[in-house]
Amino acid sequence: MSAEHGRIGHFQLENGLDVVVIPDRRAPVVTHMVYYRNGAADDPHGKSGIAHFLEHLMFKGTKAHPKGIFSEIVADLGGQENAFTGHDYTAYYQRVAREHLETMMALESDRMTGLVLKKPEVLSERDVILEERKMHVDADPASQIYESLQAALFTHHPYGTPVIGWEHEIAELTREDALAYYRRFYTPENAILLVAGDVTEDEVRALAEKTYGQIPRRSAAPVRNRPKEPPPRAERTVLLRDERVEQPAAYRAYLTPSHGTTQNGDAHALEVLSQLLGGSNASLMQKELVVNRPVAVNVSSWYRNDAVDDGYFGIYAIPGEGVTLEALDGEIDAILRRVTDEGFADADIRRAKTRLVADLIYAQDNQAQLARIYGAALATGGTIADVQDWPEKIEAVTNDDLKRVLDRYLKRKVAVIGHLEKAA
Amino acid sequence: MSAEHGRIGHFQLENGLDVVVIPDRRAPVVTHMVYYRNGAADDPHGKSGIAHFLEHLMFKGTKAHPKGIFSEIVADLGGQENAFTGHDYTAYYQRVAREHLETMMALESDRMTGLVLKKPEVLSERDVILEERKMHVDADPASQIYESLQAALFTHHPYGTPVIGWEHEIAELTREDALAYYRRFYTPENAILLVAGDVTEDEVRALAEKTYGQIPRRSAAPVRNRPKEPPPRAERTVLLRDERVEQPAAYRAYLTPSHGTTQNGDAHALEVLSQLLGGSNASLMQKELVVNRPVAVNVSSWYRNDAVDDGYFGIYAIPGEGVTLEALDGEIDAILRRVTDEGFADADIRRAKTRLVADLIYAQDNQAQLARIYGAALATGGTIADVQDWPEKIEAVTNDDLKRVLDRYLKRKVAVIGHLEKAA
Repeated sequence: MSAEHGRIGHFQLENGLDVVVIPDRRAPVVTHMVYYRNGAADDPHGKSGIAHFLEHLMFKGTKAHPKGIFSEIVADLGGQENAFTGHDYTAYYQRVAREHLETMMALESDRMTGLVLKKPEVLSERDVILEERKMHVDADPASQIYESLQAALFTHHPYGTPVIGWEHEIAELTREDALAYYRRFYTPENAILLVAGDVTEDEVRALAEKTYGQIPRRSAAPVRNRPKEPPPRAERTVLLRDERVEQPAAYRAYLTPSHGTTQNGDAHALEVLSQLLGGSNASLMQKELVVNRPVAVNVSSWYRNDAVDDGYFGIYAIPGEGVTLEALDGEIDAILRRVTDEGFADADIRRAKTRLVADLIYAQDNQAQLARIYGAALATGGTIADVQDWPEKIEAVTNDDLKRVLDRYLKRKVAVIGHLEKAA
Repeated sequence: MSAEHGRIGHFQLENGLDVVVIPDRRAPVVTHMVYYRNGAADDPHGKSGIAHFLEHLMFKGTKAHPKGIFSEIVADLGGQENAFTGHDYTAYYQRVAREHLETMMALESDRMTGLVLKKPEVLSERDVILEERKMHVDADPASQIYESLQAALFTHHPYGTPVIGWEHEIAELTREDALAYYRRFYTPENAILLVAGDVTEDEVRALAEKTYGQIPRRSAAPVRNRPKEPPPRAERTVLLRDERVEQPAAYRAYLTPSHGTTQNGDAHALEVLSQLLGGSNASLMQKELVVNRPVAVNVSSWYRNDAVDDGYFGIYAIPGEGVTLEALDGEIDAILRRVTDEGFADADIRRAKTRLVADLIYAQDNQAQLARIYGAALATGGTIADVQDWPEKIEAVTNDDLKRVLDRYLKRKVAVIGHLEKAA
């Protein structure tokens, strides 16, 4: 990372808690995050949504700090807070003036063990989540096709199950489920504390020992026990026609390694590929399908790489006036065939790498984003060194690497294609 | 059931073993079956194939009857034996002269508790199964598209996982996995003994108490704890092109209730519907698409109804010369739309019901088939009465029932479509 930031500190408390300190002295503020190494993909089969449910329930208070007090203190201190659940982790976050770091650590460590769940509150929160799901999914065909695509891509691995959970399973989650899940995963051995900001490693160590360090070691960190996705054998298409669709769209997704499962630098090559194909307004697909010819109104690509298990490479395109989704698919296929054979222009590769590395440098301007980069890496099995070596690995990607990953992973015959159409 | 057969006996031993006696005095033979109420859908997530693996391992011998002895005795007595694993149950079967029933019961009850598994035998059997999977699936595009279709239809429920298991999970199964599974499921409380043939209920009871009755009750029968499939939101297509394909084919499958989950007689209506649409050479689709016009070479439909959880309705068609799979799909859609609106000719409904009921009567001519009908019903949560009332329920299905299930379940917008094509 750049010289503006000090050395990243990384140590472990005696109870197994990982601690990462990211010095950033530009302003007297700190970002305090805790990542738990469990997310929706660790939900017990049949209890989907429990990781996300527990994220909500973590705001229900403890004996020492009853419901609402934590958030009230953060607000009174002029701070910000948030929490989020992914497939691989659940994270809690506050940003406060540096002198309030200890307060945040005391509160967050308190709810690592002291959560109090009352049945009526659990049930009413469950209703909130069911309503959230209804609003986001039932009312939105784009969300529905996204869920269907994920389920088609990951037929066996739990990444195919939405983070929020399937409605019929959320509806059956109980207080006992939540408590069992809490006891299993909310332990120091399973957590990563990240503090970014105007603070030294020694200061964080002292405060962490005083707060989180008081929690006894529970046991070994829970093991992630997830089935692998079998190799796909067929092309799969998901078609959703709905009268509420305003904008038809073509999706596609290819099962790929992630940073967690990659070999031979394939993940870094896929990152550069994603940037080249559809990562910006200057990308190849954007130029050829949007700017030069009116085939598409918009096209983008992305690569889900920060995952414990295999991820995927995605492409999304909105067709131009009068262009069918099938025709659009054909245009995308033609571009992919060409770059698989011929690779990219050296200048384009250079520009894509510069952009990717610059994005990481810009991210350093944002404490919270920086903490999230390290948090996500560590929570998915990566290391501080993986993050720090990343620019070098990106720079090392060659045209041959790009052709190799195109040929190896972006095969139409095992793609998942999605078509979202307006119902007649 | 018909008067040729005596009353079906059904009782339970003190240890919880269900016993069903199906008298059939036409010949001095008996069919002896044991159904365990666990199948591939009860495989622990990530250990697919373990139910089927254990079925193989059950032939490895016990302390009292080392490897090979059981089969040798059956052969010496001129008997037949077999075993099979489904998604909902695993069953073991012998057919012998009536005087050898006790021997079979002694041997089968011995291996309910006495199985001896040696590591080298377990590992070599695993290789046998991996080879079986390679031969059946890797070499056969039709098997591959079938697996892909099942996985697309059941994205969350374990019916989407093949009974034999995913290759990478079979390869990891161990002796310890097999023993843990054996101890969990191979108990009297979890089993159903069926004896069909020239034997009375009292005789079976006495022999059962002398053999199986000596096994102590283990605990409550294992609970089937399976996630439900979320309601499908999109049409899904699975396309497999392979140069080894000799005959292109169009598949489709619709998620439906089964006898285990049905309400309002929908399962019986779906059975009649399957018979009407593509259950025989006189069926509607066969007449319209094969006989009257050369649209298809063959077309059939089936309904997977004997399941604990939701099943499906399937259609399979081989296109005629020069007919594309898309055109064939359109023809099938047109027929389905028409019968959804207009229903079927009364004479056709009558004929379909007669045929279904006749098939059951013919089945009574085959002891083993009869035992399998009762075994499958009981192992999937049904009762003796369900089997016996079945003809009456089939007779009660009306044209309105058929239109209702067509409208409710056979909706193209949530179908899974499969296309198997020869690669160019």
